[in-house]
Amino acid sequence: MTFANIAIIGLGLQGGSIGLAVREFLPESRTRGYDLSAQHRARAAERRLVDEVCTTAAEAVRDADLVIFCVPPGVMGIAAEQVRAGLPANALVSDVGSSKQAVAKALGDALPEHVVIPAHPVAGTENSGPDAGFAHLFRNRWCIVTPPAKVDMVKLSGLVSFWEALGANVEIMTAEHHDLVLAVTSHLPHLIAYTIVGTASDLEDVTQSEVIKYSAGGFRDFTRIAASDPTMWRDVFLSNKEAVLTMLQRFTEDLTALQRAIRIGDGDQLFDHFARTRAIRRSIIEEGQDDARPDFGRGDHEGR
Amino acid sequence: MTFANIAIIGLGLQGGSIGLAVREFLPESRTRGYDLSAQHRARAAERRLVDEVCTTAAEAVRDADLVIFCVPPGVMGIAAEQVRAGLPANALVSDVGSSKQAVAKALGDALPEHVVIPAHPVAGTENSGPDAGFAHLFRNRWCIVTPPAKVDMVKLSGLVSFWEALGANVEIMTAEHHDLVLAVTSHLPHLIAYTIVGTASDLEDVTQSEVIKYSAGGFRDFTRIAASDPTMWRDVFLSNKEAVLTMLQRFTEDLTALQRAIRIGDGDQLFDHFARTRAIRRSIIEEGQDDARPDFGRGDHEGR
Repeated sequence: MTFANIAIIGLGLQGGSIGLAVREFLPESRTRGYDLSAQHRARAAERRLVDEVCTTAAEAVRDADLVIFCVPPGVMGIAAEQVRAGLPANALVSDVGSSKQAVAKALGDALPEHVVIPAHPVAGTENSGPDAGFAHLFRNRWCIVTPPAKVDMVKLSGLVSFWEALGANVEIMTAEHHDLVLAVTSHLPHLIAYTIVGTASDLEDVTQSEVIKYSAGGFRDFTRIAASDPTMWRDVFLSNKEAVLTMLQRFTEDLTALQRAIRIGDGDQLFDHFARTRAIRRSIIEEGQDDARPDFGRGDHEGR
Repeated sequence: MTFANIAIIGLGLQGGSIGLAVREFLPESRTRGYDLSAQHRARAAERRLVDEVCTTAAEAVRDADLVIFCVPPGVMGIAAEQVRAGLPANALVSDVGSSKQAVAKALGDALPEHVVIPAHPVAGTENSGPDAGFAHLFRNRWCIVTPPAKVDMVKLSGLVSFWEALGANVEIMTAEHHDLVLAVTSHLPHLIAYTIVGTASDLEDVTQSEVIKYSAGGFRDFTRIAASDPTMWRDVFLSNKEAVLTMLQRFTEDLTALQRAIRIGDGDQLFDHFARTRAIRRSIIEEGQDDARPDFGRGDHEGR
């Protein structure tokens, strides 16, 4: 099955990229979009992120056979309630949220009569808002689909084909497992990055200007992630609390072990730890999940 | 003053880049180089990292008016002892080590009759070895020079001009202050990155293959830094122990506060923290210390 009328609720990085990707890769499908912010709606119309920008969520889902919620995890339920009156009974409900158990429950509670199949494209940049999206965001990225135990197989297969058409590879797993995997590959890295950038900002002996000047020593990498949308990330941590706290506990134990090795001067333990982390980067590059060039191919080494 | 004969001890990322940069930007100067590894020496000769690759360190410093030690911090003293017999009395001794108090002491102890002015170019990539260097590594990066309290001003000014010729901006500070600043902008980020990559590798519930597949959610950024040279980083942590432990303590306190906010569901505290970390990235980009493009301009979003 293909979707003829796709409604996109929330026109930020994800919603905008989906709209642009549908126009490029699924030109037969028609897109309607809605965003809570009038300013974002205006900008979305200028950039033609969707075929039609609507002034209410209910209007955007009129005739929809697929609605994708692209709002922060904490307001998925509210956004879903806003479309309930106008959403066709046969429409498939999905989303792009970074946590899946909480979002699946929020969407299911708000739209109990509809088929809900949550999804999460593991793709993004540090930018947000209606200017951030681009059609190729999902190319060669993974999209994780987390169907409930009993699922409409035709709709599931339609959703898988949809994401594949946008350039993504699709993997299916339970929402529980998704939340554990993403806690380590995405949520914990963001928490750590937000923390260290905050720590560096609060020092008394080192000035902000020094932190900025000498950031090429490694710190600058963390500032990219820590520039991500604060509303969305607040919601991610609140909605995937247990898995994040579990991973954080592991991380803290490991950090404490390295801290002790530094304190007692155990160079062998440090070396052994540092030597075994290279292989994983090599695999990430081999799997096409990162740029092989040194320093991510950053432009500030131009002419190398 | 300019340096006519420059000796480079250690022909990895830093030493190789200095050799190539001297050929491009200071073509009047002659370079000799040495590396402990015969394999690296052969590769350095093939890549013409220096004008002459020597088979002993003593031979490399013959006639030198500047010798730059580009070896891990832990072996600076040993490398300096190896050149003592052959080093001209008037030669300036410098280095590129990432920690400065310990290195200054090691070089001073090994070469008590010479003028020692340590330096640290805050520039690099995750690669190491004789294939990693390139002539423009230092362009628009900061080089921190940490002269002793009583210093030969002619030699200091010569060293500053040398680094400026290679494209760097030079800042002068005490070794103590350097070690504190770099503990937060470089050493702590590396320790955190090494830790989280290790944590992710050791999980039972999440497979290595899943960590790799979904790394685009943020994790992959940490793997770049954690692919850095393990020997060098072991030495950095051992040689800048106090400052690293101090910064680590700060970081742990801040992480604990955010952990608590997640546990008790304090969304406002999370939002406030996440919202104030964006400004610092903007400043880093404005100061030319990072690429302004989303996602560092990574090539895997080509065609955006």
